[in-house]
Amino acid sequence: MISNSLGAMPRGVYDALHAYADTWPTRGVRAWEERWWMLAAEVGDEIGALMNAPPGSVSTHGNVTACQAVVASCFDFSGKRNKIVYSDLNFPSVMYFWEAQRQYGARVHMVSSEDGITVPTDRLLDSIDEQTLVVPISHIVFRSSYINDAAAIIEKAHKVGAHVVLDTFQSLGTVPIDVQSLNVDFACGGVLKWLCGGPGVAYLYVRPDLGRKLEPKLTGWFAHQDPFGFEVGPVRYADPPFRFMNGTTQIPALEACRPGVRIIREAGVEKIREKSKRQTARLIELADRHGWRVNTPRDPAKRGGTVSIDMPDSQRVCRELLARDVLVDWRPKAGVRFSPHFYNTDEEVDAAIATVERILNERV
Amino acid sequence: MISNSLGAMPRGVYDALHAYADTWPTRGVRAWEERWWMLAAEVGDEIGALMNAPPGSVSTHGNVTACQAVVASCFDFSGKRNKIVYSDLNFPSVMYFWEAQRQYGARVHMVSSEDGITVPTDRLLDSIDEQTLVVPISHIVFRSSYINDAAAIIEKAHKVGAHVVLDTFQSLGTVPIDVQSLNVDFACGGVLKWLCGGPGVAYLYVRPDLGRKLEPKLTGWFAHQDPFGFEVGPVRYADPPFRFMNGTTQIPALEACRPGVRIIREAGVEKIREKSKRQTARLIELADRHGWRVNTPRDPAKRGGTVSIDMPDSQRVCRELLARDVLVDWRPKAGVRFSPHFYNTDEEVDAAIATVERILNERV
Repeated sequence: MISNSLGAMPRGVYDALHAYADTWPTRGVRAWEERWWMLAAEVGDEIGALMNAPPGSVSTHGNVTACQAVVASCFDFSGKRNKIVYSDLNFPSVMYFWEAQRQYGARVHMVSSEDGITVPTDRLLDSIDEQTLVVPISHIVFRSSYINDAAAIIEKAHKVGAHVVLDTFQSLGTVPIDVQSLNVDFACGGVLKWLCGGPGVAYLYVRPDLGRKLEPKLTGWFAHQDPFGFEVGPVRYADPPFRFMNGTTQIPALEACRPGVRIIREAGVEKIREKSKRQTARLIELADRHGWRVNTPRDPAKRGGTVSIDMPDSQRVCRELLARDVLVDWRPKAGVRFSPHFYNTDEEVDAAIATVERILNERV
Repeated sequence: MISNSLGAMPRGVYDALHAYADTWPTRGVRAWEERWWMLAAEVGDEIGALMNAPPGSVSTHGNVTACQAVVASCFDFSGKRNKIVYSDLNFPSVMYFWEAQRQYGARVHMVSSEDGITVPTDRLLDSIDEQTLVVPISHIVFRSSYINDAAAIIEKAHKVGAHVVLDTFQSLGTVPIDVQSLNVDFACGGVLKWLCGGPGVAYLYVRPDLGRKLEPKLTGWFAHQDPFGFEVGPVRYADPPFRFMNGTTQIPALEACRPGVRIIREAGVEKIREKSKRQTARLIELADRHGWRVNTPRDPAKRGGTVSIDMPDSQRVCRELLARDVLVDWRPKAGVRFSPHFYNTDEEVDAAIATVERILNERV
């Protein structure tokens, strides 16, 4: 019930990690040539397939901060086009990173939410102007599960020559995304939530035409056309996706995330979405019945896979739920986040809410 | 024999990865609080102990490029002090990264080696002047195994107000290092070679007094004083080492690297160094006997754990050695690199050279 934070582990992770541990001592350094060198790109393609990204357009990284940093390093904030536009409902890591780019000349314009649940699309669109360089925006807001109007944001950004970095951390795997029909410039996220991939792997999609032009300043030997030439001097960039990678890749984390990504593909995001809509509607219905505040959009078209419910004493309720093996989490201004995924039954949804009820009744 | 590239795997990696895979489904999201959140700092301390780094001074990252990028993001290249001084024998990843910082105003001054084996210390020291900001330098050169005079470089840098980033990738684990007595500003490297930690983890030591002052622009939610407050606005920096981390850490890679780091500590770097000096001397003696070119310093005090030997047709010889399970590698301008570690016997050293001899004799 906590797929917004850490998805369930597929059984296949045991085998994937055991195989990694077998490869290291038996193949030794030959493993790089035989498997490890290409692994980051292969896993990138597998993740990319879930959002209709063309092969070769997705690189993998350690976390979303690294992805944002690679994107930022492709741009120059010293000219007139140096404005960054985002919402105060963005995930803080993305916010902290872009705020810090002020020291390179970036001007950060933050649009405030009025209700703490939704992003005011009109005000966001109005803020995107000819001086805007990048719009880093959550596809689905981590607090409220609100789905931003990505198509409108991308359309406006492109009209004025700005780039959109869509943070799909809370959407990919539970809400269908098509990066090609959205025509988004960049999309990134991690695999540990809805993709059941565990911590340690993030992905970065770069639109292919941009990918062949951009030159990230955050670079390293994996990005070189001839990495084993060990050439002196500036990097000669490889084609995407390696151009956007930098140093040695995180092999065990890449191996560990693969079974989850494959299961999501087999389960099918369209089907996952249908079930998710039913179960999140059920959670809202139950919260309403108890009179608890729902910090999530009621319109299913604007709601992702999570329902944030702020019942009385919600932080303590969350701790109690964890103690009783109902895995959820709590976020300030959100409440308890319930995130059923394709493996959760309707009975589990009902049982989770029944447990909240019991905890509140026990308080006296 | 290839510890300069990929160290042997400790048996404990199987258990460490199995335990990771057990923790994920059984503890779920609670694993963050119970173990995962602190893991990066704990592993940092264990690596730090090998170089006499005080607890809390070492952060962990995905690779050395990430470490260099965190360091670079603490500085400003737009002022008069914007010169970067390094040697053309640096590892290319470090070079490609700093070359790319020219676009932020960095002026890169590269000192060329005359013999491709040693770095001309005098010319390097002369280049470090009042305008120098950072000196990123390999402690041990990857090609030739030459040991730079780190103490002299650090002394000169400090005299003019510059900072040294010592790349200890090829030294930590085989040559004793004491970051406190060196008084170095930063030290970084990865664990996959001499630390037997596998790919996916790099470490960054920051001198404690600097660590409390510097504010990396490459930042994220792990660097925040109150990460679970999910505060809007600029990051409020945590104390080191978290201040230098950014996004979510690479848990499976961190778990996988721990057994190796512990074994190096048990084996003892002083003892490893003594054995390494004997075995590298033996490799040079055998190469001389065959009349092969040795691209590594003959003075044991200036030589790390690797001997680079350029015998006739060395790239083909390297491929043949791999096919016969003698694990070595080949680098341009170096030849075949032989890197015995504490687990290699003297017999293995002799057998490796005897295999080269057989390969060369078979050519006819």
